[in-house]
Amino acid sequence: MQFADRLNNVETSAIRELFKLLGKPGIISFAGGFPDSAMFDVEGLREASARALQEEPGAALQYGATEGYEPLRTQLAAFERSKGVTDIEPQQLIVTTGSQQALDLIGKTLVNPGDKVIVEGPTFLATIQCFRLYGADVIPAPIDAQGVQVDKLEALIKEHKPKFVYLVPTFGNPSGALLTRERRLKVLELAVKYQTLIVEDDPYGDLYFGDAPPPSMLALSRDVPGSREWVAHCGSMSKVLSPGLRVGWLVAQPELLQRAVMCKQFSDAHTSTFAQATAAQYLKAGRMPATLKRVREVYAERARTMAVALKRELGDAIEFIEPQGGLFFWARLTGAGGKVKDANEFAKRAIEKGVAFVPGAPFFAKDPDLSTLRLSFATAGVEKIEEGLGRLGQAL
Amino acid sequence: MQFADRLNNVETSAIRELFKLLGKPGIISFAGGFPDSAMFDVEGLREASARALQEEPGAALQYGATEGYEPLRTQLAAFERSKGVTDIEPQQLIVTTGSQQALDLIGKTLVNPGDKVIVEGPTFLATIQCFRLYGADVIPAPIDAQGVQVDKLEALIKEHKPKFVYLVPTFGNPSGALLTRERRLKVLELAVKYQTLIVEDDPYGDLYFGDAPPPSMLALSRDVPGSREWVAHCGSMSKVLSPGLRVGWLVAQPELLQRAVMCKQFSDAHTSTFAQATAAQYLKAGRMPATLKRVREVYAERARTMAVALKRELGDAIEFIEPQGGLFFWARLTGAGGKVKDANEFAKRAIEKGVAFVPGAPFFAKDPDLSTLRLSFATAGVEKIEEGLGRLGQAL
Repeated sequence: MQFADRLNNVETSAIRELFKLLGKPGIISFAGGFPDSAMFDVEGLREASARALQEEPGAALQYGATEGYEPLRTQLAAFERSKGVTDIEPQQLIVTTGSQQALDLIGKTLVNPGDKVIVEGPTFLATIQCFRLYGADVIPAPIDAQGVQVDKLEALIKEHKPKFVYLVPTFGNPSGALLTRERRLKVLELAVKYQTLIVEDDPYGDLYFGDAPPPSMLALSRDVPGSREWVAHCGSMSKVLSPGLRVGWLVAQPELLQRAVMCKQFSDAHTSTFAQATAAQYLKAGRMPATLKRVREVYAERARTMAVALKRELGDAIEFIEPQGGLFFWARLTGAGGKVKDANEFAKRAIEKGVAFVPGAPFFAKDPDLSTLRLSFATAGVEKIEEGLGRLGQAL
Repeated sequence: MQFADRLNNVETSAIRELFKLLGKPGIISFAGGFPDSAMFDVEGLREASARALQEEPGAALQYGATEGYEPLRTQLAAFERSKGVTDIEPQQLIVTTGSQQALDLIGKTLVNPGDKVIVEGPTFLATIQCFRLYGADVIPAPIDAQGVQVDKLEALIKEHKPKFVYLVPTFGNPSGALLTRERRLKVLELAVKYQTLIVEDDPYGDLYFGDAPPPSMLALSRDVPGSREWVAHCGSMSKVLSPGLRVGWLVAQPELLQRAVMCKQFSDAHTSTFAQATAAQYLKAGRMPATLKRVREVYAERARTMAVALKRELGDAIEFIEPQGGLFFWARLTGAGGKVKDANEFAKRAIEKGVAFVPGAPFFAKDPDLSTLRLSFATAGVEKIEEGLGRLGQAL
């Protein structure tokens, strides 16, 4: 069978090979990119789905509008308003099947084979592959703990004239980095100056541990005249409520949104109305603030535990910035004292000691830093984190 | 903003313009392509979803495998076995976000810009657009009441060397046609002879009114040596259980399935595990046979009513074959007695009289027959069907 050429653009995931080893009994895993199942508000979701089937069974089980289920769009607009996007209306967003689909629709809608797309280096692995499937040439822009470096981003925009710039500004995956308010405003200015779309992927913004992070680029666009039409914002229920619902959303200017809807019509017709009606009822019931408070507290404690244990167990063989939110530590092996510096090699030794993480190389669209690695603190309790880090120390 | 060239391949839907008129109060609509909400087994689905959240909350709300939720794959394999696909195992199918996504994945996996794809003329509108978005040149093959005409299909395969042939063999949309067993076997022989993939879309196969239709091409592939690997079968829960769950499935040979999974990973990661767990519990509870029996009886009565009323009200101004299953009548205006022969004109007059249907032209990938139209009998009760056909008679 002759497959489409676009498949040649995608590499088999190096991570997938590693994940196969995770089935080993007794493994403590820091490899995942998902929230802790134990944190799901099962009772709240049970009530919400029962209410959806009680009050609106026809709508919850029938075909729905490709744009999304109206009561959910209303709730999501209110949710965004509560986070500082003061002027958003329901018709300015569409519901997507997870925010992964929003990325797919952006690729399908905008990317011609050979088009340049700028992402953070490192960035979310599935994004790189998603855009490459549409033929994008994915260019990484360097980051530090304050997110993408704006001067270098500007130089890359000038050089490559990208179709768009994809950023995870708040607690990036895998970097955990937080783009400062100042840089956000500068990026928005670049968007206007170069008439370049900024895709803001924001699945982690609600998971902050101390003070709230700066407002989303979508929210800040009100402070940079002309920038709103150059921001596409991807939101998600996956990290804070439940990934299994597969409810994300996309906010964008009307022309882009209309084409995304046309593409979605032929991608999956619409997102599960059953899941949408459940999410709408959940938000309407007002349970979200308490849920957010709870997950923030639990993840904050786990992140703190991991930071302390990493320093204690790996010392100067590793360097990292303690994240202020999200799910991830991003770290670099220093090779100090002749210790292992290659994260792939370290990952293999770690698996042997019964602990897993993800080497950083696959997160780079180009020129991988082989000494990097990603550790998630989300799914293991504090005791397991202590134990797992002890094992990591031995593996070193 | 500069959008991708692939969007230029898709026309704005003519149907969509018509659907805007459907909001008019008092309209009786035969225009839809969906099942009757009143037929949904709400109680069964409520129990199933409650059980999913009770017994497996972690799995039902967490990220899941891209291939699908294992208990659902097991149930779907059993469902296919009950319909004559005697040797199917769960790993031979993947769960898709509605069968629309299976079509999208087939396009993404197989179609290079300029590739030929053969479909029935007429066929499901969203399929034509879905494949065109990947750059397919869509070629229609002529059909009659027994489905695609095999000798003409063979000539087209020889001439165009298509990437695949897409068929809705059982109660086609919009045709209502039923491909005979003999023709199914011949198509399977063509698949082997020309090493050409046959995509069998089968959302309506369970909705038969009298005797069961011939087995699916997937089931019949056991009788044609070498043909199984040239059949991709798309199944759906949408027409018999609930479209809102967005649960479909794709059966195909391993190479194709593996690539479809890779593409799905970047399309939506996986289908809602909440919806999948609910569907799995529903099937496991054994409620499907009774549900199928009920919907068959109701739709059979509505189809019969429509056939009688069409003959009585429109006489020799219309010709059609009474469907033996599915949701649709496909009809042709004859122009007898100087009556209207253009279905677009007829649709406008009908709307004025308070009744809607869909003109047939958009269902043709090329060379539309402007005298054709599609009427769905699924969503109106028998009294509304009588009343609506009375109005159609006046519109004529």
